[in-house]
Amino acid sequence: MNPEEFRAAGHQLIDWIADFRTRLPTLPVRSPAAPGEVRRRLPVEPPTGTVPFDQLLSDLDEVVMPGMTHFQHPAFYGFFPANASLSSVLGDLASGGLGALGITWQANPALTEVEEVMCDWMRQLVGLSTDWRGTIFDTASTGGLVALMAARERASRFSMREGGLQALPSPLVVYTTEEAHSSIPKAALLAGFGDDNIRLVEVDRSTFAMDPAALGAAIKEDIAAGRKPAVVVATVGTTATTAIDPVKAIAAVGRSNDLWVHVDAAMAGTAMLLPECRWMWEGVDDADSLVWNPHKWMGTVFDCSLFYVKDPAHLVGVFSSNPSYVRAAVDGQVTQYRDWGIPFGRRFRALKLWFQLELDGVESIKERVRRDLAGAQWLKEAAEATPEWRVLAPVPLQTVCLRHEPTGRSSDEVDAHTLSWVEAVNKSGQAYLTPARLDGQWMVRVSIGSLTTERSDLEALWGLMRSAAEAQ
Amino acid sequence: MNPEEFRAAGHQLIDWIADFRTRLPTLPVRSPAAPGEVRRRLPVEPPTGTVPFDQLLSDLDEVVMPGMTHFQHPAFYGFFPANASLSSVLGDLASGGLGALGITWQANPALTEVEEVMCDWMRQLVGLSTDWRGTIFDTASTGGLVALMAARERASRFSMREGGLQALPSPLVVYTTEEAHSSIPKAALLAGFGDDNIRLVEVDRSTFAMDPAALGAAIKEDIAAGRKPAVVVATVGTTATTAIDPVKAIAAVGRSNDLWVHVDAAMAGTAMLLPECRWMWEGVDDADSLVWNPHKWMGTVFDCSLFYVKDPAHLVGVFSSNPSYVRAAVDGQVTQYRDWGIPFGRRFRALKLWFQLELDGVESIKERVRRDLAGAQWLKEAAEATPEWRVLAPVPLQTVCLRHEPTGRSSDEVDAHTLSWVEAVNKSGQAYLTPARLDGQWMVRVSIGSLTTERSDLEALWGLMRSAAEAQ
Repeated sequence: MNPEEFRAAGHQLIDWIADFRTRLPTLPVRSPAAPGEVRRRLPVEPPTGTVPFDQLLSDLDEVVMPGMTHFQHPAFYGFFPANASLSSVLGDLASGGLGALGITWQANPALTEVEEVMCDWMRQLVGLSTDWRGTIFDTASTGGLVALMAARERASRFSMREGGLQALPSPLVVYTTEEAHSSIPKAALLAGFGDDNIRLVEVDRSTFAMDPAALGAAIKEDIAAGRKPAVVVATVGTTATTAIDPVKAIAAVGRSNDLWVHVDAAMAGTAMLLPECRWMWEGVDDADSLVWNPHKWMGTVFDCSLFYVKDPAHLVGVFSSNPSYVRAAVDGQVTQYRDWGIPFGRRFRALKLWFQLELDGVESIKERVRRDLAGAQWLKEAAEATPEWRVLAPVPLQTVCLRHEPTGRSSDEVDAHTLSWVEAVNKSGQAYLTPARLDGQWMVRVSIGSLTTERSDLEALWGLMRSAAEAQ
Repeated sequence: MNPEEFRAAGHQLIDWIADFRTRLPTLPVRSPAAPGEVRRRLPVEPPTGTVPFDQLLSDLDEVVMPGMTHFQHPAFYGFFPANASLSSVLGDLASGGLGALGITWQANPALTEVEEVMCDWMRQLVGLSTDWRGTIFDTASTGGLVALMAARERASRFSMREGGLQALPSPLVVYTTEEAHSSIPKAALLAGFGDDNIRLVEVDRSTFAMDPAALGAAIKEDIAAGRKPAVVVATVGTTATTAIDPVKAIAAVGRSNDLWVHVDAAMAGTAMLLPECRWMWEGVDDADSLVWNPHKWMGTVFDCSLFYVKDPAHLVGVFSSNPSYVRAAVDGQVTQYRDWGIPFGRRFRALKLWFQLELDGVESIKERVRRDLAGAQWLKEAAEATPEWRVLAPVPLQTVCLRHEPTGRSSDEVDAHTLSWVEAVNKSGQAYLTPARLDGQWMVRVSIGSLTTERSDLEALWGLMRSAAEAQ
């Protein structure tokens, strides 16, 4: 495709996207597709010729669209928001159009230095100290894995440079809670710690937040048994209920025992744009590493996960590689982000952040976050005021955990009821909710925060939930 | 930014990209920016207001462009090609515009199933057996790490589910060569094997390919010493010289010793579109996992790294996580790509492959690959026919390894000479070359394969290299 063909097709696609975003509210939120349905609409064998762009756009409409569950829909309340603000979509398009690849600073000085500046702007916007240096990863899963590997090497005094983890005399231990994102225990397993050495520290049964005293006790017990505590992961805004682990107390326990302290604020980081929310991560500057995903609530198109670290030199010690084919005269004077994580090459992801900050502005993002915080409080209060509905967890952010509990039903019956009325809502295409388990029972997470979700949408949702649940 | 603002700005940006790609040949290939130069053009503090789109476009021109090294330039011969075909850029734009997020099949059935189909189309296009199942990762570094972790768990009978790597009685060993990409030993270190347990198997001194007999001997020695050989990584198209490890023989040695066999064909995979090139990975169907990066030579905009595996159930055993908040009724009938690798969420990367295959067509891609193979042979022959120039390695693909060796200079003098004339070429902005070390000496890699590099460009390059080198 030459530049003139791109110009013509590009204009068509821009219009197609603008039209799609405009008619989004009329589409079903959850895809009605059955397993295999999308696959069957595509040929089994690869194409031998080419198709005109019009044809491909109509294939997008006919093959892909019916298989889409719409995270950008105003009635999307599933998982967590994964907003793709159109300003950031343009930044991502600029990145693709430029065709840049970061593998060294020299391979694209702008890619590296704009990333440095954007990470520092974002640091300032959430009030982190100047001790932090940032980079952009794909996901918080990768950030968690990088943190755990960095911690592993600090605790083992760089066992990777000798016999590896398999040569250690006493096992390293990882601490988190059962409310941590599944990527944290997964990262511990992938980093080689072993399931026996993952401690799920007790949480407070009403707030679902880590109990720092229980953390201290678990550490003491492991030390007494000859194991070596290596790292604790605190979560600000857990996935099930957006619980807030007490970072300050956890960091104090962690640091006094020489643990690496990682803070997973993938979801809540965006709320830290608001000074009135920063109590939620009080003590964060005492941590060693930190993750915040602008690709969630803030709305930078996926993937854009910020990873901050206090000691980049240690990170480079763990992740560096310096083969001859990437050496250049400027090495040593510049940041080589390749040495901060797993992939050798990187996209120009900073452009999407830059475009969003410059075009939408921080103030409009803050206003939207405040709108969603208020929306969650409204729904919480509406549910609390309604018979047989129960709010199951504190609502510090934008997620409300609810259950409709008709009188006289057993907990098994309530479980079946919950899954059934949620499925009725989802099947209607009018809204999308994802259930989760809490204290051994199913509940419904209403995760507010799609870019276009207004109070009227929440009111419609609450009506829909009530009629689906109360009719059964 | 609302859809109508996006429409207006999007059209401007499409034109900006089309114009950029048109004038690319007039720009310096390597950025002339000094360290810190781009950073200093941006404000230290984040913006408090917003800027109009025109302003942002002119910032792109003034802040970013002078800091770009242009991989899309017809005179780009550095590293390996990282082509961003404009058809695939549109596919990537569609992905951003749709704002899809894959975390479960249900979160976007189309995202999962189009990825399945594209991986299968690509499998067919390079003649792999039907035993392979594929997925898309960000980079071959990630693919290598996933392969090594999968191998680690197979060899240790899932030590991750118990005491982890740190509880193993005998250390696991990884085999590759010094010519493997740096991400392979790095992955071994990150996966916890330890530097002591990485064997760089001898290569043939004229082809730089792994010696399978030396592999067999190294395995035997490790077993005798009580260690457990776990995995061998063969490379088809190494980074320095595009050497071709003999996959068939390596896989035979590997399999007879119960090793996981990983094939890194990140670069050469694209050549396998041509039946006449498939001798290069003869035996590949005997491997356990395989990486091929369409985001290199083939031209799918970064990032798009195909990872194929024979036993997806084993992969899922290592990488699965199934928290309650992502469970759905269809689980078990569908592919959950989350369980095939590290990140929890994924972009709709398959769209860029689909767009490229449908719009550019496989035939035009094959034609371009043949053009580049012939171009490399032309340059090789030109150099061989010229006094004081030496071709240092076989040229099976698109990279020619050269040195200008003026009579009577010591090897140190030749090293200095090489770095000096390459710097003169790069500084001119007329072409970009990256040197590398081979057998302890610097040499020049001419890596052909930018989308727009024609024979006339190669002729101009050869003239430029001769005048830069022979003048010194």
